[in-house]
Amino acid sequence: MIQAKGYAAHDPASDLVPFTFERREPGPHDVQIEVLYCGICHSDLHQARNDWRNSLYPMVPGHEVIGRVTRVGAHVTRLKPGDFAGVGCMVDSCRTCSSCQADLEQYCLEGPTFTYNCKERDGRTLTFGGYSDVIVAEERFVVHIPPALDLRGAAPLLCAGITTWSPLRHWNVGSGQKVGVIGLGGLGHMGVKFAKALGAHVVMVTTSPAKGADALRLGADEVLVSTDPEAMKRHAGSFHFLLNTIPNGHDLNPYAGLLKVDGVMVLVGALMALEPALYGGSLIGGRKTVAGSCIGGMKETQEMIDFCAKHGITSDVEMIDIAKVNEAYARLLKNDVKYRFVIDMATLKG
Amino acid sequence: MIQAKGYAAHDPASDLVPFTFERREPGPHDVQIEVLYCGICHSDLHQARNDWRNSLYPMVPGHEVIGRVTRVGAHVTRLKPGDFAGVGCMVDSCRTCSSCQADLEQYCLEGPTFTYNCKERDGRTLTFGGYSDVIVAEERFVVHIPPALDLRGAAPLLCAGITTWSPLRHWNVGSGQKVGVIGLGGLGHMGVKFAKALGAHVVMVTTSPAKGADALRLGADEVLVSTDPEAMKRHAGSFHFLLNTIPNGHDLNPYAGLLKVDGVMVLVGALMALEPALYGGSLIGGRKTVAGSCIGGMKETQEMIDFCAKHGITSDVEMIDIAKVNEAYARLLKNDVKYRFVIDMATLKG
Repeated sequence: MIQAKGYAAHDPASDLVPFTFERREPGPHDVQIEVLYCGICHSDLHQARNDWRNSLYPMVPGHEVIGRVTRVGAHVTRLKPGDFAGVGCMVDSCRTCSSCQADLEQYCLEGPTFTYNCKERDGRTLTFGGYSDVIVAEERFVVHIPPALDLRGAAPLLCAGITTWSPLRHWNVGSGQKVGVIGLGGLGHMGVKFAKALGAHVVMVTTSPAKGADALRLGADEVLVSTDPEAMKRHAGSFHFLLNTIPNGHDLNPYAGLLKVDGVMVLVGALMALEPALYGGSLIGGRKTVAGSCIGGMKETQEMIDFCAKHGITSDVEMIDIAKVNEAYARLLKNDVKYRFVIDMATLKG
Repeated sequence: MIQAKGYAAHDPASDLVPFTFERREPGPHDVQIEVLYCGICHSDLHQARNDWRNSLYPMVPGHEVIGRVTRVGAHVTRLKPGDFAGVGCMVDSCRTCSSCQADLEQYCLEGPTFTYNCKERDGRTLTFGGYSDVIVAEERFVVHIPPALDLRGAAPLLCAGITTWSPLRHWNVGSGQKVGVIGLGGLGHMGVKFAKALGAHVVMVTTSPAKGADALRLGADEVLVSTDPEAMKRHAGSFHFLLNTIPNGHDLNPYAGLLKVDGVMVLVGALMALEPALYGGSLIGGRKTVAGSCIGGMKETQEMIDFCAKHGITSDVEMIDIAKVNEAYARLLKNDVKYRFVIDMATLKG
């Protein structure tokens, strides 16, 4: 076994604290990675605090992991020691179901093995995430990070990036389209960058006029303040696609009103009840679609990383020492970050 | 002007009564039709009683109209006197918007002109529907009815038929797919017939076990009683497509659970709030789609009619005299019809 160090939550109410644990030695298909950087996703906080009532403790959060490959199993072909590599939200899946065979491991019919707060396929061994100095994962679930990419800003691509990239690609967002990104946070700021790079006319849709200037800086062509009824009326029926990154329950009807005939709104943030309820007429009136999308498959994660390397796209990050992780959580609750905290794992050794 | 006879509602609370009114003389692009049969759609009742708060009186309902062409304008090319013809939910649209140019007149950006309870493009002249002896409409909004088709059973194709046909075609429903039709009424019974004729494995999804035998007779391969939790569990994650014909607000979440990864549920009946609210997780977990669809364009209405003629598909109807229309409405409120009332317009002359 490999001795690992990291930070863990031990119960819903307490801060994360230093934690020592064991990782498996890499098997023939495994990659061992020295973790350099790990992004802080809002879901880390939800799970550390058991907001979703499914937390397993001790919990080492973190699924936006960037590091350097230190060891590979005999059958590993895509990565070698010295390469930069990334691990995202999943570290395993059944490999045999229709979803896995279609490179949609995130929709594995038996459920993917999440990078933390989950059990390995053996049904017993807890998975531990990227708030740690080392991680071991099967090659299929490790992406290659081209050296051209800024490694700090690349960490959030593994979750915030792929979660927004996958629906934009699946629904063929591109030039000639008016695309709205609803909500400017960790997901939304990546959505703006991707939609713009894919050639769309991008509108940031936000409740906060104060976020407008930043949205334009990130690449948005326009800002639509959704609390302004006149502005909402002006944009009614004009969007081909809406990427809805709002993380809480909310009223879908006003956003559905923004869609053109045959327009599509994709939810990537809100798992909970969307209240007040959707009206059937909001969709029926224009053959409109509301769909959901969950992270992305490993193949498209690699495609996204390669696209980012080519186009110089990374997340806007604020680097922190791991000892500040609990402070970062407190600020996250106030949306006080532009747009992602990333832990510099070198601070774990100090 | 043409003198027309029919039945009309004059206020929300009273019965429909005999009514004499005027129609325009056919212009160069118009078709004049002697009405033979007219289906009774549930929306006739809603509008006669002002349930949607948009009723214009006097109102001659009826948008499932079958008749014989008696006169055509000089520029009419697709129809000639003696032909059988149908008029559905629309009699005009702007003709110039992107929807109209895409043969999606039902999504006309300026709003289509509905066959009744609406105003002509002049903004003044009330439209009057098919509970009458004669109707005049522009050729584009009149379909040709092949003589092979049973005319009585063809009437409901103009609304119940196209409303279910259009989404099945738009989402490419066909062989190799497991398709659920939710709700067995006027729309649902056409959905079953079409989905079966298109080659799908068809499951009738109903709250009423009593409807099972009839669903099988109509062509369903299986019946799923949605109030049976065990049965719902057995079918979970197995449907490519769900045609949701429920006309009232309802909980979408259990039905979303029936969909496979990338599965699609299309609403065609419920315009109101869908309560309890949809959970984002119900869609995000498998890249699932909820969409809406409204009747269908005129081009695809003709395609549907031709398909029906080729495959011998019509609606199951109960013929009534027009003097019984108020009784029929009362029975409709109790879902006491299999599956569509059709008025024999010859009874108007008696």
